[in-house]
Amino acid sequence: MVGPTRFMTLYACFELGIVDALRKEGGLTAAELGAAVGAKPDAVEQLLYLPLKEGFVARDEATGGYTLAALADVAETDLQRVLTFMGMIKTGMLRQLYYLPDSVSTGSVVGLKEFYGFEGTMFEAAAVVPEVRSAWGPLAQNETASVYPWFFRSFDVPDGARVLDVRGGNGLGAIMTCRLKGSPGLRVTTFEQPALEAECLRNFEAHGVAEQCSFVGGDVLQSLPGGFDVVLLKHFVDMYDKDDVLTILKNAHQALEPGGQIVVLAPVYPEDITDPDDLQADFFPAYILGCVVGRGGLQKLSTYRGWLQECGFEVTKVTAKDPADIPADAIINRVVICATKRG
Amino acid sequence: MVGPTRFMTLYACFELGIVDALRKEGGLTAAELGAAVGAKPDAVEQLLYLPLKEGFVARDEATGGYTLAALADVAETDLQRVLTFMGMIKTGMLRQLYYLPDSVSTGSVVGLKEFYGFEGTMFEAAAVVPEVRSAWGPLAQNETASVYPWFFRSFDVPDGARVLDVRGGNGLGAIMTCRLKGSPGLRVTTFEQPALEAECLRNFEAHGVAEQCSFVGGDVLQSLPGGFDVVLLKHFVDMYDKDDVLTILKNAHQALEPGGQIVVLAPVYPEDITDPDDLQADFFPAYILGCVVGRGGLQKLSTYRGWLQECGFEVTKVTAKDPADIPADAIINRVVICATKRG
Repeated sequence: MVGPTRFMTLYACFELGIVDALRKEGGLTAAELGAAVGAKPDAVEQLLYLPLKEGFVARDEATGGYTLAALADVAETDLQRVLTFMGMIKTGMLRQLYYLPDSVSTGSVVGLKEFYGFEGTMFEAAAVVPEVRSAWGPLAQNETASVYPWFFRSFDVPDGARVLDVRGGNGLGAIMTCRLKGSPGLRVTTFEQPALEAECLRNFEAHGVAEQCSFVGGDVLQSLPGGFDVVLLKHFVDMYDKDDVLTILKNAHQALEPGGQIVVLAPVYPEDITDPDDLQADFFPAYILGCVVGRGGLQKLSTYRGWLQECGFEVTKVTAKDPADIPADAIINRVVICATKRG
Repeated sequence: MVGPTRFMTLYACFELGIVDALRKEGGLTAAELGAAVGAKPDAVEQLLYLPLKEGFVARDEATGGYTLAALADVAETDLQRVLTFMGMIKTGMLRQLYYLPDSVSTGSVVGLKEFYGFEGTMFEAAAVVPEVRSAWGPLAQNETASVYPWFFRSFDVPDGARVLDVRGGNGLGAIMTCRLKGSPGLRVTTFEQPALEAECLRNFEAHGVAEQCSFVGGDVLQSLPGGFDVVLLKHFVDMYDKDDVLTILKNAHQALEPGGQIVVLAPVYPEDITDPDDLQADFFPAYILGCVVGRGGLQKLSTYRGWLQECGFEVTKVTAKDPADIPADAIINRVVICATKRG
């Protein structure tokens, strides 16, 4: 019951600048902090009770001065990453979650409609609603920076292969495939909704890969172009329900040459859902159903294995990120699943 | 970070009727539950991952059927009380908390303005905004039923005393004083903003206490009428900042005859704010500042003791509720402080 209040009390201490003020100068009283951040001392004192309780800050009972406690030990880059994520939760989720039951009933993100008059997914809203874009943009950049290098280390692309990047967005996946998996004769095709073609081709041009890259417009639930050696499904199968994922996997199967490889990047639930260290069940259903697409959700690795098998693939390799590389604040636990088209 | 999502995922399972469906019939699959509550099976499965993780429900891996686990052991009255509180948090707080930093900066409840165009406190909004009233009404009734009998057992009213019920709302406190503390010659005055006079007098009439009860309109921060033996401050000092509480206590001091008694009912923070079993620091700052009045907040008992002393009172008795009478889901920890006007 105190989840929403805990979240906003802590975030408000950052957003109002109380933590920054204490970082600059320890020992400030509620009156001094109030003057520094433009709030009544009483309110500052109230907001700081929870950080005090959690040991994030400390208070000298004699002087009434506050200092950073556990928060003083958090590295700036770690803090900024967490605050970016918290900012997304505040702007992109907190109010929208009110409509979670309605989103589940209708299979659409009712929160986006209520707050922005927007019908569609969060990804689509980010393209046209500045507030949504500003909430999600920094997160998407963090994602790309931290996940893509690891993703591309997790599978091999044969020399001269033809690669299909399914739902490849504005072409970044294709560009990185050329850079990190380049070989003579390599060709990469971005498959995406036709509306993104112009932007995608501009990006290929700007990054000097227009010769190797092409664009095919279409709907992943209808069909994919054929004749490929490698098909990439990066970060989106969890946005579809089971029947749609099976359709996508079958379409990918048809797109591949015999012996071709499918590479799936997706967050997965732990096989033991009661694992207390894994917070994905705490986060993702509400996030995906209530704030992003109104359908879909994570699966367990064993579920994806079964679905791949069912669609004519043999799983050859599963790569999880080195736990040492996953910061303590990370909620998402992604894997890369490589599988080969049978027969 | 997962506080808001945990809250709404669990609440959505109740609001959509998934828990009710399982209570009626154990062993339903996601497909059967989806049909019963009007949602896609995939979404039901996603929402149930968190209750599975928490052990609230269980799932038979062979049949895919869900049953109530820990939730089966929760008594209906307990569950309804918790759901009433969760409903208030959803409607009265979740979206409004987005504006917590703004509420703190402006000292007003910005969320009420944004969502209802209402300027004022949640109490005032409840009088005119149906959605606010429906969120708060059941909670206020639970409050009255569970707290008032205990409150009135916690202090004595001398026979024939003159009692002032400060900010006495629609007169309920005065009516209960007559009923539970009645004696020949007892007189009770409800002090409240003038707008409530007519409703208050109607209630006195309807409950047959019009002879003993009267109404005085005014502002508690200006002055109180004088000549009383007992002054009641029920459940509102935590809605004021320190300077205002001191003003109210000084006004109460003037309202009392020498040796007269002040009785304060208020929730209090634990003396050790780091007590992990006390969730008030997790809840109240965001609640009071962001959702109710935009100012004020709980204090520790020692703080109220000091303030009463400073305003000319001697604390004579502090009554905490018997822990055995406090349900495990209760966030609020109230005390009754009795103090006598010095010399």
